[in-house]
Amino acid sequence: MPEQLPPDQPMNDSSPAPASTLLAAITSPTDVKALPAAQLPTLAQEIRDEIIHVTSTSGGHVGPNLGVVELTLALHRVFDTPRDQFVFDVAHQGYVHKLLTGRNGKCFRLLRQTGGVSGFLNREESAHDAFGAGHAGTALSAALGMAAARDLRGSDEHVVAVCGDAAFTCGITLEALNNVVSSTKRLIVILNDNEWSIARNVGAISKYLNRLSTNPTYNKVHQDLEKFFTSLPGGHDMHRVYMKWKRETKDFFVESSLFEKFGLRYLGPINGHNLDELVKNLEFAKNCDTPILLHVLTKKGKGLQAAIDHPEKFHGASPYDPITGENRKLAGGGAPNYQDVFGHALVRFAERDSRIVGITGAMPSGTGLSHLAKALPKQFFDVGIAEEHAVLFAAGLATKGIRPVVGIYSTFLQRAYDQIIHDVCLQNLPVTFCMDRAGLSANDGPTHHGLFDLAYLRCVPHAVVMQPKDEDELVDMLHSALEHNGPAFIRYPRGAGTGASIKKQPARIPLGQAEVLREGSNIMIWALGPMVADALALAGRLASEQNLSVGVVNARFAKPLDRTLLLSQAACIPLLVTMEDHVVAGGFGSAVIEALQEADCNTAVERIGWPDQFIGHGSSVEILRAAHGLSPEAIYQRVLTRWRNHQHENATADV
Amino acid sequence: MPEQLPPDQPMNDSSPAPASTLLAAITSPTDVKALPAAQLPTLAQEIRDEIIHVTSTSGGHVGPNLGVVELTLALHRVFDTPRDQFVFDVAHQGYVHKLLTGRNGKCFRLLRQTGGVSGFLNREESAHDAFGAGHAGTALSAALGMAAARDLRGSDEHVVAVCGDAAFTCGITLEALNNVVSSTKRLIVILNDNEWSIARNVGAISKYLNRLSTNPTYNKVHQDLEKFFTSLPGGHDMHRVYMKWKRETKDFFVESSLFEKFGLRYLGPINGHNLDELVKNLEFAKNCDTPILLHVLTKKGKGLQAAIDHPEKFHGASPYDPITGENRKLAGGGAPNYQDVFGHALVRFAERDSRIVGITGAMPSGTGLSHLAKALPKQFFDVGIAEEHAVLFAAGLATKGIRPVVGIYSTFLQRAYDQIIHDVCLQNLPVTFCMDRAGLSANDGPTHHGLFDLAYLRCVPHAVVMQPKDEDELVDMLHSALEHNGPAFIRYPRGAGTGASIKKQPARIPLGQAEVLREGSNIMIWALGPMVADALALAGRLASEQNLSVGVVNARFAKPLDRTLLLSQAACIPLLVTMEDHVVAGGFGSAVIEALQEADCNTAVERIGWPDQFIGHGSSVEILRAAHGLSPEAIYQRVLTRWRNHQHENATADV
Repeated sequence: MPEQLPPDQPMNDSSPAPASTLLAAITSPTDVKALPAAQLPTLAQEIRDEIIHVTSTSGGHVGPNLGVVELTLALHRVFDTPRDQFVFDVAHQGYVHKLLTGRNGKCFRLLRQTGGVSGFLNREESAHDAFGAGHAGTALSAALGMAAARDLRGSDEHVVAVCGDAAFTCGITLEALNNVVSSTKRLIVILNDNEWSIARNVGAISKYLNRLSTNPTYNKVHQDLEKFFTSLPGGHDMHRVYMKWKRETKDFFVESSLFEKFGLRYLGPINGHNLDELVKNLEFAKNCDTPILLHVLTKKGKGLQAAIDHPEKFHGASPYDPITGENRKLAGGGAPNYQDVFGHALVRFAERDSRIVGITGAMPSGTGLSHLAKALPKQFFDVGIAEEHAVLFAAGLATKGIRPVVGIYSTFLQRAYDQIIHDVCLQNLPVTFCMDRAGLSANDGPTHHGLFDLAYLRCVPHAVVMQPKDEDELVDMLHSALEHNGPAFIRYPRGAGTGASIKKQPARIPLGQAEVLREGSNIMIWALGPMVADALALAGRLASEQNLSVGVVNARFAKPLDRTLLLSQAACIPLLVTMEDHVVAGGFGSAVIEALQEADCNTAVERIGWPDQFIGHGSSVEILRAAHGLSPEAIYQRVLTRWRNHQHENATADV
Repeated sequence: MPEQLPPDQPMNDSSPAPASTLLAAITSPTDVKALPAAQLPTLAQEIRDEIIHVTSTSGGHVGPNLGVVELTLALHRVFDTPRDQFVFDVAHQGYVHKLLTGRNGKCFRLLRQTGGVSGFLNREESAHDAFGAGHAGTALSAALGMAAARDLRGSDEHVVAVCGDAAFTCGITLEALNNVVSSTKRLIVILNDNEWSIARNVGAISKYLNRLSTNPTYNKVHQDLEKFFTSLPGGHDMHRVYMKWKRETKDFFVESSLFEKFGLRYLGPINGHNLDELVKNLEFAKNCDTPILLHVLTKKGKGLQAAIDHPEKFHGASPYDPITGENRKLAGGGAPNYQDVFGHALVRFAERDSRIVGITGAMPSGTGLSHLAKALPKQFFDVGIAEEHAVLFAAGLATKGIRPVVGIYSTFLQRAYDQIIHDVCLQNLPVTFCMDRAGLSANDGPTHHGLFDLAYLRCVPHAVVMQPKDEDELVDMLHSALEHNGPAFIRYPRGAGTGASIKKQPARIPLGQAEVLREGSNIMIWALGPMVADALALAGRLASEQNLSVGVVNARFAKPLDRTLLLSQAACIPLLVTMEDHVVAGGFGSAVIEALQEADCNTAVERIGWPDQFIGHGSSVEILRAAHGLSPEAIYQRVLTRWRNHQHENATADV
C-alpha cells in the first residue's frame, strides 16, 4: 500500500469555507439515511459548495463529482455500505461518497494533498471503498467478481457498479458485459451517462446511448409495459413472464436495447438529478432477480456554470476561480508543459508530412494532441478509452506507410502491453509512442505515477526507449523517432519543462548515442530525463564542497544504451552513478549494470531511483521525493557515502 | 524479426502423401481465380487431404483450418492479395491461405518445423500475409487501421478482417467495433461463426449469435427487405435510404442486430461451405459503401470425423491417426505435463477449501483447469478470450475472501498487465497466477514464447515471482501461493515435467528462500526452473572435466530474491553464473546483479538466458537453444571461458 505521509497544510484559501450545517453532521451513511427527505436538496447544495470550495483551491475532478451528487445520495439512502459494495469506475467521482462516509472535514479539505484524502477511492482509506481505481473501465469486471464471490459464499449483500458512459468504450467493460449473465443472477449496474469521457465521447455506443435517451418511442413503449406488468397483482412474477416471452417468441425485435442483448434488464433513462426518481428505481433494482442496468442521465459539472460551459477543462481542473472559471495563477511556472511542446512539434511535423497522424485514447488535452486535432483534424484520431485498440490501430496504419504517433500517459500504456510486444515490436512496425506523465503524478498518486515503463519496455526486442533532458531534446527525439523505421518510445514527465528554447530545425539524434555534458574523473553520473538537471547540480556541489571531479552524461537512451561511451568511462572512472525517475528494479540503472557485467567490467555503480513500493499521492513531487530518499540532499549524501566507502576499500586493498 | 534456421527433415510420415493434382498447380491466387468453378470442390478436397496429412504427422491447428477451406477459396476468388488485404484473427486458420499463396509443397510439409512455414501468418513469410498474429482478437482493430490508412492515402483496395466468433469475447475486438464507423466507410468483416473458441464459446454474445443464426423471423424479414430494395432501379441508393429511414424513424425496433447498433451493415447467416453463396455475398460486400459484417456459419473440423467429434482436442492437435483420431505415440515422454500436475493439485486444494476457485480465458485444457471444471464446476470460471476481465474478475473475487487462481499462458498474461499493476498488486490482493508456457513454445514461435514475464513482473511492488525446478515443487509453490496473503506468480514451461514424484502433503516454501542443491567453491550457479537440471549437469561436467568445485542453487524466487544466501556466497566464491529460460534483459540474472550492486559487491557474474531478439519457431526447444548459444555445450564453453578469463585477470592483478 502507498505509505502515509504527515499532512500538508491546507492551501491558502481565497474563498471562505462554506457553512455546511447538514454536511458537518454527517459522519457515516447512517446519518444520510436518518435525514428527512425534504432536507436532501439542502444537503446536496452543501456538498456542491464544499466540492467547489475545495477543488477551486487545490484542483481536482470537479465536473464528474458535481454530476453525481444526487446519484450518490440516493445510493446511500437505498443501500448499506460497507455491507453492500459500490464499485465506482475510475473512482474520480467518489468525492461525494467520501463526504458521506466519514471523510468530511480536514482530510477532505486536504484532497489530493499530503496527508489528505486521495482523489480516487482506495481500499486502505475506508471500509466503504470496496475497490480502488484510477484507470477507467474496471468497475463492471471487479463488481462481477464480487457478485460471484457473494454467490459462492451464499450471502445476500448487494453489489453496485457505477460506470460512466465512457467506460463502455473500454474493452474490459465490454468483456465483463459479455460475462455478466454467466457469472451471477444479481448485479446492479448504474450507467452514469453524461456524454463525456474526459473529452466528448466517441464511437458507436456513445451515439447509441444518445439515441436511446432521446427516442420517445422506445421509452414510452417500454415504460408503459413496465407499468402495466408491475401494476398487476404479483407484478414481479408477471414481469418475469413478460421478459421470458420477449426472449423466446417471435418478438425478437422488441428486445432492442443493447444491454438486453447482453442479458441485462434495462431501466431508463432516469433523471440523475431527481432524488425521488433515483431512489424509486434503485429500490426496484434492489429487488430485481436478474442483472439490471439503470441508465441514469446526469449533467457533468451541475451547479457550477463554468464547469457546465467547459466540461473538458473542468473534468480534472487546476485551482480556479469559481465565479469566472479562470485558472488561478500558480507560483513559478512560465515554461511550457511537455504535453504542449509535444503537441505543437507534432503539428509542425505533420504539416510537412501527411503520413504523420496522432492517436489518443480519449485524452486530447492531457496528451497535447488537441493541437493536432485543431490544426489537422484528418490526421487525428480519438478512439475513446481504448488503449489496446489505439496501439493496434496504429500498428495497422503503420503497415501501410502511415507514421502513427500514439500520445498516451505512461501508466495507461500498461493497458496495451501485449499489443506493444505482439503487434508492434514483433513486426518491427514504425509506431512512435509519446508517453506523458512518466515519473510522478503527485496529486493523483499510485494509479497515475508512470514508474514502470523502462522495465517493461526494455526487455522487448526492437524497442527503442528514450527520454529527453528538456523540451528541445523532446522535439529532436520526436523527429528522430519519426525517421526511425521501427518502434520508438519517448517518455517525459508531467507538467512544465525547463524553459529551454526550441531550435528552428530539429536535429536527428543517432540511435543510442548519449551526450557528455560535463567531464569528470572521480565520479560519472549517467542521468535520464529531468534527472539530468539534478545530476548537474549534484556534480557542481560535489565539486565545490568535496573537491571531487564529477562528470555528467545525458544518457538519452535506456535502450539501446551507449555502451561504447559507458565502457570507455567505466575503464578509467572508479564510481558510476545512475539517476532515473523510475523504479530501480529493472530500470535504466539496471541496464547500465547489465552492460558492465556483459563486458566483464566491475566498476562500482550507485543506482538512484524509486524504491520497490507503490508511491502514494502528495502535494508535490518534491515532498514525495524527500519521503523516499530522493531529495537532492539525500542523493548527495548517498553518493558521497558510496564514494568514501569506495575510497576506503581501495585504500584497504592497497595495504 | 525471428531468424531463419536451416530446414529440418519432414517428420516420418505414417501415411502416404496425398496426390494433389489441382493443388500442386496452384502457385499464387491468380491460379485459384483461373480455375473453373466446377473444379473448386475437388481443390477443396485436396486442400483438406493435405492439411490432414501434414497435421496428422506434425500436429497443428486442424479444426480451424478444415472449417475455412471454402471461405478462404471464396476470398481468393473475389479479392486480389496482396493489393487487397486479409487480416485473419489469431491467424491459426491461415493454412489454406498459405497453400493458395505460394507456400505449397515442402515448406508446408514442414509446417511449424525448423525451416518450414509458421503455424500463423507472418509478414516476413509472404507479401500475402498483411498482418501477423498468434493472439486472439486483433484482426478487426488492425484491419481498421489499414482501412483508415487507405482512406488517408486515397487508394481503393479492400481490407477484409476474418474474425472467429470467439474474437467477440475479447475486449480489443469490441473496442474496435465501437470505432469502425468513426474510422472508415469501407471495411469488410467476416464473422466466422463456428460456436467455438478453443473450448466451446461462452458469454452473452455467443448466445446471441446462436439465436441470430437460428431465428427464422429476423432473417426472413431482413432478407425480403434487402431483396426488395436492391431489386429496385438504383437499388444501392434505395438501400441507403432504407438504412437512413431505419435509423431515424420510429422503427427503432427493427434495427435489431447487435452489429447494426455499432453501425455496421449485417448480412447473414451465410453457409460457409457453399462456395456460390460465399462468392455472391463477398461480391456484394465488395461494392458496399458502408462497413459490413458477413455472418458466415462454418463447421470446425469439416472433413475429418474425429475433429468434428472432438472440436477442442482438434483445435490445436498433436500428431494423430486420421482414421481413429487417436494421438500418435511420441518418443520419450512418460512424465506428466506441468499443466496436468497443476490442474490435479488445484483440484486437491480446492476440494479441501471451497474458497479456492480457478479462472481461465477460454483455455481449460491448455492450462489444465479442465480437471477443476470436471471435479468442481462451481469453483471454475471460463470467461472467454478475455484476459483483462479474467484478472480483474479475480481481483473482485479476492476482495471478498475468495482465493482465485488464474491459469494462463505467460504470453497471454501480457494482455492483463495493467490489471496486474493497477488492480491486483497495488491493492495487494491474494490472487495466484499459474503461468504455463513460460519459456519456449517451440512449434508455435515468437507469438507464443513466454520470455518476458520475469522482467515485466519483477518491477511491480508486492509481486512474488517464482518458478519450480520440478512438478513436486510446483505443487509446493501453489500451496505456498495460496497461503500467501498477496499476489503470487508461478511460471513453468510447456510440456512434460521431470517425472519427479509428488509428495502426499505439500510443503510450504518460505517466501524468497532459495535451495542449495550442490556445494562448490569456485563457481556457484543460480538457476531457475528447468535450468536447474541443466545447471546440475553443467556443474558435474565442470567438476569431472575441469576439476572445478561448482555449486548449484535452485533459486526458486526471482522476487523476492534470497539475498542473504546470495551475498554470503558472493563473499567467498569468485564467479557466479545465473541461468534462466527468459530474456537476459531485465530478467532473473539482472535481479542478481542488482542485489550485488546494492550490497556494493563486485563478484563476477555470467548471465545465461535468451538474447535480445524475437525467437522464431522450430522443431524443438533443443534446436532453438542451439541456434542461440544456449546448448549445453555452448553454455559449458561460455562458463569455462569466463572462468579462465577471471583466473587470468586475477593472476595478472596479483603480479
